[in-house]
Amino acid sequence: MVKSLKSTPREDGFRMPGEFEQHDKCWMVWPERTDNWRLGGKPAQTAFVEVAETIAKYEEVTMCVSQSQYEAARGALSDKIRVIEMSNDDAWMRDIGPTFVINNIGEIRGVDWRFNAWGGLLDGLYFPWDKDDQVARKVCEIENIDYYSLDDFILEGGSIHSDGDGTAMVTEECLLSESRNPHMTKEEIEQKLKDYIGVEKVLWLPHGIYLDETNGHVDNIVHYCAPGVVVIAWTDDENDPQYPLSKASYDYLVNETDAKGRKLEIHKLHIPDEVLITKEESEGVDVIAGTLPREEGDRQAASYANFYIANKAIILPLFSDEKYDNEAIELLGHIFPDREIVGVPCREIILGGGNIHCITQQQPTAK
Amino acid sequence: MVKSLKSTPREDGFRMPGEFEQHDKCWMVWPERTDNWRLGGKPAQTAFVEVAETIAKYEEVTMCVSQSQYEAARGALSDKIRVIEMSNDDAWMRDIGPTFVINNIGEIRGVDWRFNAWGGLLDGLYFPWDKDDQVARKVCEIENIDYYSLDDFILEGGSIHSDGDGTAMVTEECLLSESRNPHMTKEEIEQKLKDYIGVEKVLWLPHGIYLDETNGHVDNIVHYCAPGVVVIAWTDDENDPQYPLSKASYDYLVNETDAKGRKLEIHKLHIPDEVLITKEESEGVDVIAGTLPREEGDRQAASYANFYIANKAIILPLFSDEKYDNEAIELLGHIFPDREIVGVPCREIILGGGNIHCITQQQPTAK
Repeated sequence: MVKSLKSTPREDGFRMPGEFEQHDKCWMVWPERTDNWRLGGKPAQTAFVEVAETIAKYEEVTMCVSQSQYEAARGALSDKIRVIEMSNDDAWMRDIGPTFVINNIGEIRGVDWRFNAWGGLLDGLYFPWDKDDQVARKVCEIENIDYYSLDDFILEGGSIHSDGDGTAMVTEECLLSESRNPHMTKEEIEQKLKDYIGVEKVLWLPHGIYLDETNGHVDNIVHYCAPGVVVIAWTDDENDPQYPLSKASYDYLVNETDAKGRKLEIHKLHIPDEVLITKEESEGVDVIAGTLPREEGDRQAASYANFYIANKAIILPLFSDEKYDNEAIELLGHIFPDREIVGVPCREIILGGGNIHCITQQQPTAK
Repeated sequence: MVKSLKSTPREDGFRMPGEFEQHDKCWMVWPERTDNWRLGGKPAQTAFVEVAETIAKYEEVTMCVSQSQYEAARGALSDKIRVIEMSNDDAWMRDIGPTFVINNIGEIRGVDWRFNAWGGLLDGLYFPWDKDDQVARKVCEIENIDYYSLDDFILEGGSIHSDGDGTAMVTEECLLSESRNPHMTKEEIEQKLKDYIGVEKVLWLPHGIYLDETNGHVDNIVHYCAPGVVVIAWTDDENDPQYPLSKASYDYLVNETDAKGRKLEIHKLHIPDEVLITKEESEGVDVIAGTLPREEGDRQAASYANFYIANKAIILPLFSDEKYDNEAIELLGHIFPDREIVGVPCREIILGGGNIHCITQQQPTAK
């Protein structure tokens, strides 16, 4: 018996924990859109398998997959991974999965936001998106978890970060976009976040990563590492179009305090050198009207901040960039001394428009 | 982590419990084939909803449904029912779901038989059946239950009954059919049953119900009510083609003992008066080459033995047959004094070729 609740997590005493808190498991979706993933999705599937099997060393992983790819996914994944049939429009579990909230008496619930493919008919990335929008409640029913269903509020999981201790981070670029909830004021949107992820304060960064297709998701520019501790995607190159974006968000955060009145400890996480789509990569993608094209020379929104915090490990995207890959490993090793820093090559994921954090969704442990 | 096991339940100490033992939940599949269920499946869906909601008063129910009917099923069912997406070729969870086995230290596992739509290309009821054949392992993965996967042994759950105490019942008509495992001898088939449902003795009834589309599934002619106690579908009308079939099975059982050396207590459960498809009912079914036609005047394999034993209740098919409906209720009330006897109208289910037992699959409690 799984209930769709009409109250709010806030009034029921639930909060979204930090990603660094204990997880029960991790959810993913198998990539297969041939108009987004090159060569019929095969290289991306190989990359997703590596992400899944890596995370599975630290916590349970469930891979959701459409019927048409069910046998292929089941065959490609080891029996450490649970494979469950689920229709989808693409593979971004961070954005389409439930946001899990917990209370302090060992209960867990889901939040089922509405999803419109990062912008609906205005600047969304594909149409239709109805199967993606069903994923959150399907996950909750499989897990026997009651969920809060929002009738009309558009939000993707990748556009929010929570420190689990009263503070959320978002970007104005995304949450105030015309293509999300244009009928609502900033204050009304902030109230929704307070009500549904159980925070007292929302920090509004101005921008995300340059050319990010999601209208600047917060999970590509910063990551909460602990209450009061964040990393921010950075570049020292003042001529890089990313520079003013990162600078503006950095300056904002430096001058802010969180819900507990703390100044933030902010670590700069340098982005890799430019990642551009090659001719061969571009040519492997089906060209379909209405889907974002993948053109030769397009710059990807590459950022190390898009890592996944697993139990006892950081699953870090690597860009085959010797200098900055190693810098990222070193910095995160310093910030997370009790976790293994495990790099996974991410090129075939970033080519689809996101990274390791975007394709994962943690289910926290109710405690 | 769900494992596909290559050992057997017998060697691992597992047995298939009797249906009358405690259940954790019941599994069903939403009907939608328009070439089997009239009027786009709507009347059958209403009947399945009533079965599900009735069982849900006694134990949890999970309804599996294809993506195309997901919203319809979720909307038609109350939130007492868990709804999970699952592709299928039709709606007979008894035959396509896992057979669950338990041991005596609180563990449960599944048996994933191969399925060929009751006869494959020889006399099967539809083609293809690949989605049905995946259902058992999908259920096991959802439940995190390890399962025994048989490479090449065809069997439907409705073709076996277990008393949980060492004895199984099957029919020769079905298990020795040319369209199941024609490469195997009767002794080899019996050994498979002993190995995979953990019994020491198999009772081989000659026949099932007249005109049963499944080659005479045992679950339409008898039901184990307790170790040593069975009901058998019966008719007093010696001119009914069912008479010699029931008589032969009755005579067989009277002269047999079970694995524990018990003589069987056998109760005759009189079948309803003839159930024939009407013109209107026939006309509501899509005519598709390769699928069994549903012709006006066709006699249905109607039997009260096709009930479902839920925790604390018997879910009994009713045929709007005042005399025999009431006889069945009375007899089962006598046999099951501690369970409620709850009748559910079954006409829209029998029109699809089976009944309440065929559309349900219990998941026993590991204890």
